[in-house]
Amino acid sequence: SVGLGVMLLWQGESTFASFGVFFLQMGWGDLGAFGEPSKETPNLDQMAAEGMLFLDFYTANPLCSPSRAALLTGRLPVRNGFYTTNAHARNAYTPQDIVGGIPDSELLLPELLKKAGYINKIVGKWHLGHRPQFHPLKHGFDEWFGSPNCHFGPFDNRALPNIPVYRDWEMIGRYYEDFKIDLKTGEANLTQLYLQEALDFISKQQASQQPFFLYWATDATHAPVYASKHFLGTSQRGLYGDAVREIDDSVGKILQHLRKLGISENTFVFFTSDNGAALISAPKQGGSNGRFLCGKQTTFEGGMREPAIAWWPGQIPAGTVSHQLGNVMDLFTTSLSLAGLQPPSDRQIDGVDLLPAILQGKLIDRPIFYYRGNEMMAVRVGLYKAHYWTWSNSWEEYSKGVDFCPGQNVSGVTTHTQEEHTNLPLLFHLGRDPGEKYPLSFISEEYQRVMERISAVVHQHKVTMVPGEPQLNVCDKAVMNWSPPGCEKLGKCLTPPKSDPKKCFWPH
Amino acid sequence: SVGLGVMLLWQGESTFASFGVFFLQMGWGDLGAFGEPSKETPNLDQMAAEGMLFLDFYTANPLCSPSRAALLTGRLPVRNGFYTTNAHARNAYTPQDIVGGIPDSELLLPELLKKAGYINKIVGKWHLGHRPQFHPLKHGFDEWFGSPNCHFGPFDNRALPNIPVYRDWEMIGRYYEDFKIDLKTGEANLTQLYLQEALDFISKQQASQQPFFLYWATDATHAPVYASKHFLGTSQRGLYGDAVREIDDSVGKILQHLRKLGISENTFVFFTSDNGAALISAPKQGGSNGRFLCGKQTTFEGGMREPAIAWWPGQIPAGTVSHQLGNVMDLFTTSLSLAGLQPPSDRQIDGVDLLPAILQGKLIDRPIFYYRGNEMMAVRVGLYKAHYWTWSNSWEEYSKGVDFCPGQNVSGVTTHTQEEHTNLPLLFHLGRDPGEKYPLSFISEEYQRVMERISAVVHQHKVTMVPGEPQLNVCDKAVMNWSPPGCEKLGKCLTPPKSDPKKCFWPH
Repeated sequence: SVGLGVMLLWQGESTFASFGVFFLQMGWGDLGAFGEPSKETPNLDQMAAEGMLFLDFYTANPLCSPSRAALLTGRLPVRNGFYTTNAHARNAYTPQDIVGGIPDSELLLPELLKKAGYINKIVGKWHLGHRPQFHPLKHGFDEWFGSPNCHFGPFDNRALPNIPVYRDWEMIGRYYEDFKIDLKTGEANLTQLYLQEALDFISKQQASQQPFFLYWATDATHAPVYASKHFLGTSQRGLYGDAVREIDDSVGKILQHLRKLGISENTFVFFTSDNGAALISAPKQGGSNGRFLCGKQTTFEGGMREPAIAWWPGQIPAGTVSHQLGNVMDLFTTSLSLAGLQPPSDRQIDGVDLLPAILQGKLIDRPIFYYRGNEMMAVRVGLYKAHYWTWSNSWEEYSKGVDFCPGQNVSGVTTHTQEEHTNLPLLFHLGRDPGEKYPLSFISEEYQRVMERISAVVHQHKVTMVPGEPQLNVCDKAVMNWSPPGCEKLGKCLTPPKSDPKKCFWPH
Repeated sequence: SVGLGVMLLWQGESTFASFGVFFLQMGWGDLGAFGEPSKETPNLDQMAAEGMLFLDFYTANPLCSPSRAALLTGRLPVRNGFYTTNAHARNAYTPQDIVGGIPDSELLLPELLKKAGYINKIVGKWHLGHRPQFHPLKHGFDEWFGSPNCHFGPFDNRALPNIPVYRDWEMIGRYYEDFKIDLKTGEANLTQLYLQEALDFISKQQASQQPFFLYWATDATHAPVYASKHFLGTSQRGLYGDAVREIDDSVGKILQHLRKLGISENTFVFFTSDNGAALISAPKQGGSNGRFLCGKQTTFEGGMREPAIAWWPGQIPAGTVSHQLGNVMDLFTTSLSLAGLQPPSDRQIDGVDLLPAILQGKLIDRPIFYYRGNEMMAVRVGLYKAHYWTWSNSWEEYSKGVDFCPGQNVSGVTTHTQEEHTNLPLLFHLGRDPGEKYPLSFISEEYQRVMERISAVVHQHKVTMVPGEPQLNVCDKAVMNWSPPGCEKLGKCLTPPKSDPKKCFWPH
């Protein structure tokens, strides 16, 4: 549930010329431009100063895999299948033993871009399923350098295999074996490898005048946090800050590379994150959501509001700020628009085309839905957010020290039981109260007026909702990364245990 | 305990030419440049973009009067007398019935600047005592437009008189009577009056080539919050945001005025605040301290870390950021340095000269002390902060709904009893943990090493501390603003009750 990413589309000689996005797990409050007190992201701050800062940008889910599936399909996880029905309102993702993944029926952004002549590369974490049918090169990508799952480990290759790293169709090694991560010192040069992959790919596409889409989804800054030697110990914020600085530096180098190649005005770049900072890992391995409530795993602002920057020199006026309500799913629709393509008409697409907001400063009226698994927990309309359900995590987990809201406790809001408020939602004004601390009075005129509008939006959303087949229900140790393609060449094939499919257990 | 202010010094033809400061009650997180999510302070953000942003700047006390006394004397309140010994570690200020005020023995910045030929003006709230001997024109100011106390009210002129507004030596009216504040609509044009006073003063000094010091200390954004008609309803943040926008606009107009008159490169301007945002008044009347813990009245970061911007075109490189540990008391010493004066040598001055940090980017090693009344609660040395005492407020107050840390609760840190940690202070690393949520382990090597250094700093501070005579111990209804000078001309003299001096009660 992390990942930094960049998408880059370069369209050679055409009019709009290019497009790009970074995608990673950093919190709203991790960037200097968003008020991080150490202000150690000069390159991202510069990117914002040269482009457009989005202050009201969201992910589609407070967890990694569903958020990434939403980015690439333009659809809510409850539609594209990246959710579970094993229990009510549970966060689910794609660990090694997950049986499901991205269904063939889903149309991914690179599949569509291919039709317009784009070459598509993913660098970093895929996270949409690791079984053969879910391979990114079967879903529109032309190249891949990275891994299908989180870089957890080291594992013993008996109970759990170490996560493979792929180049295109085949694995070329495993984390902790061939790709070192020193958990003691925090040293790993993975971000440098990912950076080089990005630079090389961009150079190659520029040389061949080939439009491209680069999805740069590094493992950093997900726990276990790492940085390369050059960055270790350089941050006021400890190891997590070192990792942020390396990402920041990489973004700067990629933008500089585009400039050097003369294609910066042909390349649209977007930087954002897949979920809020994981406060559960703080302070050593987790970032900051600024003043927003709670973090990753929750549908409070800290779990789903993301840092976001659009950059396109010559097209986006420098130093602008947008209050457009945005969502990672919009990058699907916006990219298609940039490529001159229409979004698929045979299915519900949740992303909207942000180009009017980005290029003309318009504000598009659209809601933001906050889901946890199969439940719409909250909705934002304008500056108002209504919670239909509240939950942080269970008392049982919380009493064991699992805390998604450390140091924060808003009575009746950060609840440890799943509290339903459908009949009388908790309503917050995010302008006056971005920290979600002061619900509006149920008897106020403002509450009545606003809920009337929100109720209509929610009704419309619910009556037209057709959930996809849930992909994250079944787990089986036999499907883990025992013998990925290419393992024979490396002598790294392992023997899977007997198949034993079970309902996955999702604790929160 | 509020107030926006500007100090401006203009030195005509001399080399450094000029100097200035704004001083007000806004929180660290209230400015766009510091990550406020609505980003509604374009002028202050621009001031930062043209000047230097201080990220580690503090006030000398989490309450208004002591903080202002510290700014003007360069000394901690425990030295200049702005504290109480009525109870341990209590916040005290200068309400209408306070008997004390700034002692004649204290040397104020304008008194010293006068000797170098400066004309000094205070616009706004004085707050260093309202009895005749404490009048600002007796302490170095040449002009005054504003009031001696907070704009609380309306009062009945029987139990409590309405607060007078002075022009120079005499009152010219009272709040709520001659200077309207509509508590229902939030409308008041006071900030516009203060703005005009500033612009006129600057014009006059420029015309006569007279160096000046302007201390612009508006009542806004202290509760009761107000804004003028033009700004009402213009903010995403409600009335508080309207007030912030008006302050922001005023700062922009003052800077623009300096430019227009051709003296911007001769005028040093500093913007900061007297204490953290008053979360007790949130969300309707209180601001934001970003991700910092708690607010005004406390010695957590939210109570004492302040937004701060230095501006001096042609001298301060544009868009720079400083991690210099700074304090409002430094503005005393820095101003003297700019004016070519030495600080007094017959007393302890706590402020340091920030010019090496501002003009040459140097970092001066100096501690920050966090006091509440007569107690040093905490100290910051480098990135580490040690709490020797913790307290938010009493259980009794808290149970009545008085909450300085709404929605926040860090076990063992935001305590509701005065907890002493002198023998084993709670230690935080403010880089890794700016929110003061994760005390370092007492048995870690880091704790031992750091506390050794901090202990020496604290020992030195305590053994050389000579407290001043406490000024905030005695209250008497007879000393209130019944008959300020000039009241006869206006027919606004009231009859004081019989003198009945009592120990002031300071609940927190």
